[in-house]
Amino acid sequence: MARSDFRFTHRLRVRWSEVDKQDIVFNGHYLTYFDVGVTEYYRTIGMPYPDAIVSEGADLYAKKAEIEYHASAEYDDLIDVCVRVARIGRSSFEFRIELYRGEELLVSGSLIYVNAHPETRKSAPLPAPLTDAFKNFESLAPEEGGARR
Amino acid sequence: MARSDFRFTHRLRVRWSEVDKQDIVFNGHYLTYFDVGVTEYYRTIGMPYPDAIVSEGADLYAKKAEIEYHASAEYDDLIDVCVRVARIGRSSFEFRIELYRGEELLVSGSLIYVNAHPETRKSAPLPAPLTDAFKNFESLAPEEGGARR
Amino acid sequence: MARSDFRFTHRLRVRWSEVDKQDIVFNGHYLTYFDVGVTEYYRTIGMPYPDAIVSEGADLYAKKAEIEYHASAEYDDLIDVCVRVARIGRSSFEFRIELYRGEELLVSGSLIYVNAHPETRKSAPLPAPLTDAFKNFESLAPEEGGARR
Amino acid sequence: MARSDFRFTHRLRVRWSEVDKQDIVFNGHYLTYFDVGVTEYYRTIGMPYPDAIVSEGADLYAKKAEIEYHASAEYDDLIDVCVRVARIGRSSFEFRIELYRGEELLVSGSLIYVNAHPETRKSAPLPAPLTDAFKNFESLAPEEGGARR
Repeated sequence: MARSDFRFTHRLRVRWSEVDKQDIVFNGHYLTYFDVGVTEYYRTIGMPYPDAIVSEGADLYAKKAEIEYHASAEYDDLIDVCVRVARIGRSSFEFRIELYRGEELLVSGSLIYVNAHPETRKSAPLPAPLTDAFKNFESLAPEEGGARR
Repeated sequence: MARSDFRFTHRLRVRWSEVDKQDIVFNGHYLTYFDVGVTEYYRTIGMPYPDAIVSEGADLYAKKAEIEYHASAEYDDLIDVCVRVARIGRSSFEFRIELYRGEELLVSGSLIYVNAHPETRKSAPLPAPLTDAFKNFESLAPEEGGARR
Repeated sequence: MARSDFRFTHRLRVRWSEVDKQDIVFNGHYLTYFDVGVTEYYRTIGMPYPDAIVSEGADLYAKKAEIEYHASAEYDDLIDVCVRVARIGRSSFEFRIELYRGEELLVSGSLIYVNAHPETRKSAPLPAPLTDAFKNFESLAPEEGGARR
Repeated sequence: MARSDFRFTHRLRVRWSEVDKQDIVFNGHYLTYFDVGVTEYYRTIGMPYPDAIVSEGADLYAKKAEIEYHASAEYDDLIDVCVRVARIGRSSFEFRIELYRGEELLVSGSLIYVNAHPETRKSAPLPAPLTDAFKNFESLAPEEGGARR
């Protein structure tokens, strides 16, 4: 995969409080960056989190996260968080996420979410408006995307 | 004030993710340490947060925080968070908090909380069981305290 | 003071990970917002932190923080962090900081920093290029400010 | 794998600032718990991080993290962080980590670290004193372990 395969990118700047004694971002904070990217992805496809999802009777829980560290982000770096939906199942789906500093890939990973009933925590089918929004957005080639930022 | 003026102490260890490029704890994280100390203080006086307070119809909001930085906590340090209730008003009260590494004072400060109605956010009198618990605990001299840890 | 008294404003968005069970930003995270605002302030006045300050032989340490909580920031809110230098002393200075959601004041406070020698931690005079940059920036009326963003 | 397969356990309590609007620990904070567990593991095997490792000329970088979320940790929960070294390679090794609340498995995962030269970031063989410490500790059956806590 390459950076050009993502229609969606959100830029953020590394904060002082996120950098550790090794002068690099603490490994856990990348999941905060993933989360910020996913939030903006939802907004861009017209399904702002969590209201648009809760209003469909759904509640999403993180099921699995994978992170590969290729190079280190440092204080004050501008990081581009690239997000796409890589797989849609019956009750779960997967985000593919890559973090770049310019053209350099720093971190790649994935987040799998499952739709579960808030009380029983039993898995439930994904709402069609959500999966439709994913498909509509991802079906457009990157170069067609007016939503890129 | 001296360390011996506090009946209550809670010990914690500085985490890697809390230390910044200057090799010291980021200034904002001390409010997390304050919060951990306050949580354990509530537990010790028999008013575990938030259930014991909510069950009295109260909801506490931070109104003001003050922090003075005397010396820096570093990675892996064992820090003693000393907490006492220094003032009790009609609808608000103040924690005095001091952080020590051994006998060295690192940080001192205060937190003022106000009881407010969760919906209207208008201030309301503090529940008597809470103020009674504060007074009972603080009225004992430190040397009488079996609850110190 | 009013929002219009600040020449400098930096906008940020509240992250999911910064909001607690009360559905509001945890009280300690506002110091992270203060820090982000201060970082961007330094960049705007031409003294990017920490390189421009270290290269003057200085090392700044937080000495005191004060925070007043007027109203709560919530998830996904856009917050304007307003920063100005309110006082310049021999070896220390004070930032005045106010956080707004639109025209609503949420949080106000101050941060006092002292210049100290990295090894001895003894206070030292502030470098003239830093105090000059403060004075130049703040002496312009807000309406003259091309740097506002 | 079962909880009894781990010789090492470290207990921590979920902090208020770690819990989000869904009333559960934010998914990224589990990597902070992993890191706390790993720090205490290093201390227990006699290789306190980072001094004992740096003094061998090594510098460890996170290479990969995997996290599976089985159930949610909530505010004030006591969590047992179980850590073991599951694989030792030439220049890298893997921690297997499981988080329990009592006997209930909440989160499982792994962290792969690589030894790299601080300047060149090229991978380098793991120092023998480190791999020896891993092997000595893990070779003892859990029931023999006096270090368990």
